[in-house]
Amino acid sequence: MFEVGIIGVTGMVGQQYVKLLAEHPWFKPKVFVGGKSAGKLYEEAVEWVGEYEPSKELMRKQVEPAEPERQKADLFFSCLPSEIAKELEAKYAAIHRVISDASAYRMEPDVPLIIPEVNPDHLELLREQRKRRGWKGFIVTGPNCTAAGLVMALKPLHDEFKLKKVVVATLQAVSGAGYPGVSSLLIIDNVIPYIKKEEEKVAIESLKMLGTLENGKVKPANIMIAAMCHRVPVLDGHLESVYIETERPIKPEDAKEVLRSFKGKPQELKLPTAPKNPIVVREEDDRPQPRKDRNAGNGMSTVVGRIRKGIDDYSLRFTLISHNTIRGAAGNAILTAELMYKLGYWEV
Amino acid sequence: MFEVGIIGVTGMVGQQYVKLLAEHPWFKPKVFVGGKSAGKLYEEAVEWVGEYEPSKELMRKQVEPAEPERQKADLFFSCLPSEIAKELEAKYAAIHRVISDASAYRMEPDVPLIIPEVNPDHLELLREQRKRRGWKGFIVTGPNCTAAGLVMALKPLHDEFKLKKVVVATLQAVSGAGYPGVSSLLIIDNVIPYIKKEEEKVAIESLKMLGTLENGKVKPANIMIAAMCHRVPVLDGHLESVYIETERPIKPEDAKEVLRSFKGKPQELKLPTAPKNPIVVREEDDRPQPRKDRNAGNGMSTVVGRIRKGIDDYSLRFTLISHNTIRGAAGNAILTAELMYKLGYWEV
Amino acid sequence: MFEVGIIGVTGMVGQQYVKLLAEHPWFKPKVFVGGKSAGKLYEEAVEWVGEYEPSKELMRKQVEPAEPERQKADLFFSCLPSEIAKELEAKYAAIHRVISDASAYRMEPDVPLIIPEVNPDHLELLREQRKRRGWKGFIVTGPNCTAAGLVMALKPLHDEFKLKKVVVATLQAVSGAGYPGVSSLLIIDNVIPYIKKEEEKVAIESLKMLGTLENGKVKPANIMIAAMCHRVPVLDGHLESVYIETERPIKPEDAKEVLRSFKGKPQELKLPTAPKNPIVVREEDDRPQPRKDRNAGNGMSTVVGRIRKGIDDYSLRFTLISHNTIRGAAGNAILTAELMYKLGYWEV
Amino acid sequence: MFEVGIIGVTGMVGQQYVKLLAEHPWFKPKVFVGGKSAGKLYEEAVEWVGEYEPSKELMRKQVEPAEPERQKADLFFSCLPSEIAKELEAKYAAIHRVISDASAYRMEPDVPLIIPEVNPDHLELLREQRKRRGWKGFIVTGPNCTAAGLVMALKPLHDEFKLKKVVVATLQAVSGAGYPGVSSLLIIDNVIPYIKKEEEKVAIESLKMLGTLENGKVKPANIMIAAMCHRVPVLDGHLESVYIETERPIKPEDAKEVLRSFKGKPQELKLPTAPKNPIVVREEDDRPQPRKDRNAGNGMSTVVGRIRKGIDDYSLRFTLISHNTIRGAAGNAILTAELMYKLGYWEV
Repeated sequence: MFEVGIIGVTGMVGQQYVKLLAEHPWFKPKVFVGGKSAGKLYEEAVEWVGEYEPSKELMRKQVEPAEPERQKADLFFSCLPSEIAKELEAKYAAIHRVISDASAYRMEPDVPLIIPEVNPDHLELLREQRKRRGWKGFIVTGPNCTAAGLVMALKPLHDEFKLKKVVVATLQAVSGAGYPGVSSLLIIDNVIPYIKKEEEKVAIESLKMLGTLENGKVKPANIMIAAMCHRVPVLDGHLESVYIETERPIKPEDAKEVLRSFKGKPQELKLPTAPKNPIVVREEDDRPQPRKDRNAGNGMSTVVGRIRKGIDDYSLRFTLISHNTIRGAAGNAILTAELMYKLGYWEV
Repeated sequence: MFEVGIIGVTGMVGQQYVKLLAEHPWFKPKVFVGGKSAGKLYEEAVEWVGEYEPSKELMRKQVEPAEPERQKADLFFSCLPSEIAKELEAKYAAIHRVISDASAYRMEPDVPLIIPEVNPDHLELLREQRKRRGWKGFIVTGPNCTAAGLVMALKPLHDEFKLKKVVVATLQAVSGAGYPGVSSLLIIDNVIPYIKKEEEKVAIESLKMLGTLENGKVKPANIMIAAMCHRVPVLDGHLESVYIETERPIKPEDAKEVLRSFKGKPQELKLPTAPKNPIVVREEDDRPQPRKDRNAGNGMSTVVGRIRKGIDDYSLRFTLISHNTIRGAAGNAILTAELMYKLGYWEV
Repeated sequence: MFEVGIIGVTGMVGQQYVKLLAEHPWFKPKVFVGGKSAGKLYEEAVEWVGEYEPSKELMRKQVEPAEPERQKADLFFSCLPSEIAKELEAKYAAIHRVISDASAYRMEPDVPLIIPEVNPDHLELLREQRKRRGWKGFIVTGPNCTAAGLVMALKPLHDEFKLKKVVVATLQAVSGAGYPGVSSLLIIDNVIPYIKKEEEKVAIESLKMLGTLENGKVKPANIMIAAMCHRVPVLDGHLESVYIETERPIKPEDAKEVLRSFKGKPQELKLPTAPKNPIVVREEDDRPQPRKDRNAGNGMSTVVGRIRKGIDDYSLRFTLISHNTIRGAAGNAILTAELMYKLGYWEV
Repeated sequence: MFEVGIIGVTGMVGQQYVKLLAEHPWFKPKVFVGGKSAGKLYEEAVEWVGEYEPSKELMRKQVEPAEPERQKADLFFSCLPSEIAKELEAKYAAIHRVISDASAYRMEPDVPLIIPEVNPDHLELLREQRKRRGWKGFIVTGPNCTAAGLVMALKPLHDEFKLKKVVVATLQAVSGAGYPGVSSLLIIDNVIPYIKKEEEKVAIESLKMLGTLENGKVKPANIMIAAMCHRVPVLDGHLESVYIETERPIKPEDAKEVLRSFKGKPQELKLPTAPKNPIVVREEDDRPQPRKDRNAGNGMSTVVGRIRKGIDDYSLRFTLISHNTIRGAAGNAILTAELMYKLGYWEV
């Protein structure tokens, strides 16, 4: 059993960590780090949003201020707001292992941006990170919640058919905006076709994760990605409809087979948080749907459906759903921690 | 003042006709045609859905069975379910002028599929129709509700930049499925990424409307269109996010100018149902939105926003909204009737 | 292990039975009875609504027509539409044990209307039923979904403080109307303050269940009940806000204690479907809420909160939530079956 | 034409004032008063929520700080948050006429709490106010948005049947919580059975408004009121289901007649904002509904339906809807201003 800390424990993703770690076989939540709420009990500090109810023990844990030098844990998960993550995560990484959902370090050349099934080899960037930063710990990041599901589905297709172009339209859940996040006055009987900086993140992060490690650096994939992001009145689960163009001919049946048989290191190593199938393919006309499919594989599987022809033999359309606060945040980070431990990356 | 009939008057689009015609300066609703509800008063036959309340006079009109030979009106608007429209509309057209929102005749080579601002010249197909069918009346059709807004925005862009490829993702309102239509059990906290036959209709109808009249026939536009359609928990207004590729370089600022300055025959002729601007361009980051923009131009304007670069100088992204039961159905048909009258097409 | 049948297996409550019985320790779903869908496989016949997915084995069970004489099972659960339940349930009861959620027999004087924690003694009516009807089997009913939660909360209060008057306002979920049920066009951004016959059922059924068994008959409780029912855009869980007047003085703290400590036969007998606490009392200002509390006790607990003074020392206000398709239908019937078995009522 | 100021102009009710005054025949919005937003143009300061779009002229008005001594207007409408209203409104009233939607002064004995159709005679309290406070101006208040609709319906019933007891359950729109107000994460697929201090306000304010003026003071009505308040996923319009007990026998048909024929001073004086009917009675089973009825009489009418027996001849049940930001706030205050002008109360 390792003891872990959660930095930003009162936010939506922080709450997801508390839930997922409550029953984790390896990790025990020990340090709760908050900002304004430091000094309070967790139950006083948090406005708990979900249906799950944490144990009394967790609810009565003291929230501590961000003082890395006074805190002791084997690993810290960070889900800080981006604007303060840059400075604070560095302070933690100077001493501690840090796995972060924040966007601050994702695109730094010496920071791995990891989906464990997709690019575990990118963890090798840590050698460069250690050299360059001189930290005793490290920072490893997970992607934007929309990029997480997208890249999971694109990876096997890229390996097999070589992607040239991706046009993706997203229908994103309100939980992606945190709490209180999206006002009900804006979203009842409505859709908002804009999420700040989201389209840029989806494109640039996807290219990094689909990129190849060459000479200790990640060379981004050479794919054109155009994202069009929308907020819809759905609680959880980002749905994405994707049009792709490929270098090699792509038939829907072949694409299905490739997606269905995709496995990664987490499945091979039978990590505790690894879903049996990172990608679940559905054959029904009208799936995936947020409410029905967001919890597939305990929220860790990407469900892909409506796999059909694009406009010719070199293009394809499909729809996917991925749970934004699990695979798109806390769950992916926990799986990354498990993978890193098993592969020996806790000591770089 | 002309007297008009409404075939299928109890459905969602039928209700929209009743509303729009209640105050129309040229057309007076006279004949209400229904199926199972024939013989009842309209107020007994209809489950009125919207907030608007028709006058007592209209609510107490008798619904008549579909017996074209016994009915007298200067024009019939039809919004029949597709499966019965084929046969019944032909019977009406044998005697009467018919403008239809049903899909049955849209793709017939001798039937105009019209958005008045986009392709009024296609009304010339009526010469061929009369010759071939021997009807005393005619059938003119309006497009699928999703194609209506899309083609309105694509037309000026195609004229100026020549379209090669269109990828469109739609977020469609529940009113598009009629009444009772989409069960609340399916759509609360959810999205359904599938609407039967919709993607095919959007592609094929758009190409016909953007096509050119050559030797009395419509030659479809040579554009690749891939649609990805979704139902969302919104009452009215289809939102569509569009990625296009063009033959000529396309800058966002130029595209805006082209869209903003687009006008058609209805504006030129100052037809009663013509919106001042068929396309309204918004500059805000987060517009258009269904609730805020669906009623622009009394539901007859297409609102376009988020006009931004695609992936290179030959591509563009934008979002549009169009009112599905007004511009996408009843309103477009009424405007078509006005245009045909003014241009002399009532007598072919 | 007993083999059970489900009559009306394709509807919303039928689906709930399939889900709840899939893992039941005593009951194994064997016979699926449908109407129009007879002859099909269950997966072809059902439009499965919930997130749960039944096993392949269950999905490929054949749906049979309603032919009681040709069917064999230890017990039948019926969730037929009321209009056909009267005749069909009698046919089944002539041969089989029947526990029904339909309203057809609820108010018959010789038919028990049972919430296992509330009025298990009413099962004694079966003696009279057998005598009068001459059935080899029996019919036992469960209450309307709104009455279920209400009576659960009223029972201990009535026992302790003696109720005189109840005014209850309900905010009911759309699943209570079955599938497709409530059109999304009616309920998005809206509330419907009317549910056909619901207010009458709530009053009359509650009085029967709170009544006393005297000389083999149920004497209804002498309480004035006024219900005001509303449909709201919520998927599952009926919320009810209740104002009561009592004969004895009632303090909020005393009421809480009485509710909190309430237990019934099912808890005593540790029946498999019995929740640990039939009533869960919450202290937060803003609970219970449908989404957070409907699944308490696996949907079998009634969650009561906001217990506060009424207008004087003889009145009280509180809010409760109860899962309408579990405690309000399938779950309550299954618990009744368990109770009847344990108490020896399978053989009357 | 009078020039008016709006204090708290950027909030939800402030926006409603801007909309309603834009076309007002007597009042011209001149002074916009804000807090943190002072110094900005209105379009920079406001996050405009509704579908209506104010004119450029209004959007480019400068927002001024709260400096009553430097501002000049014939009347100020205040919709300040309660916590700052107490002090700030007094400063304005020392110099200016103030009509306020804030709760700060509603229950002060010398401050009229007015619904123009219900208790215009309470304006006489202004004599006492002037004497006691020594203000050159005055403060007149409007009720809580839930009390507004309730009291409108109760007034004629109280006059005719004499109320003894009222139990009211409310289903309130999210706009009542202001902007951003209720998080979408809390209200999608949910109901919140609690609104802070609302139930107390509904009771106490209703009693004041239904009270009688005796010796220059308001004697509260002697009615027992128990409110149970809920927030529901509806944009605008508070729906309230009401159970009443009366001293005199009350038949549903008589109650309808009394409600239907109710008129007040505003109707008599044909004030510009007065609805033709302050109360609209609907006969349909399923009305009123928020979406269909909230805009009756331009949001100034209270729509009452489902008028039916209570539990005996001395009780009644009915449902009403009232637009919370129009009759429940800005519209009621504007009508009060009109009434006061006509009755000569601008000069006390």
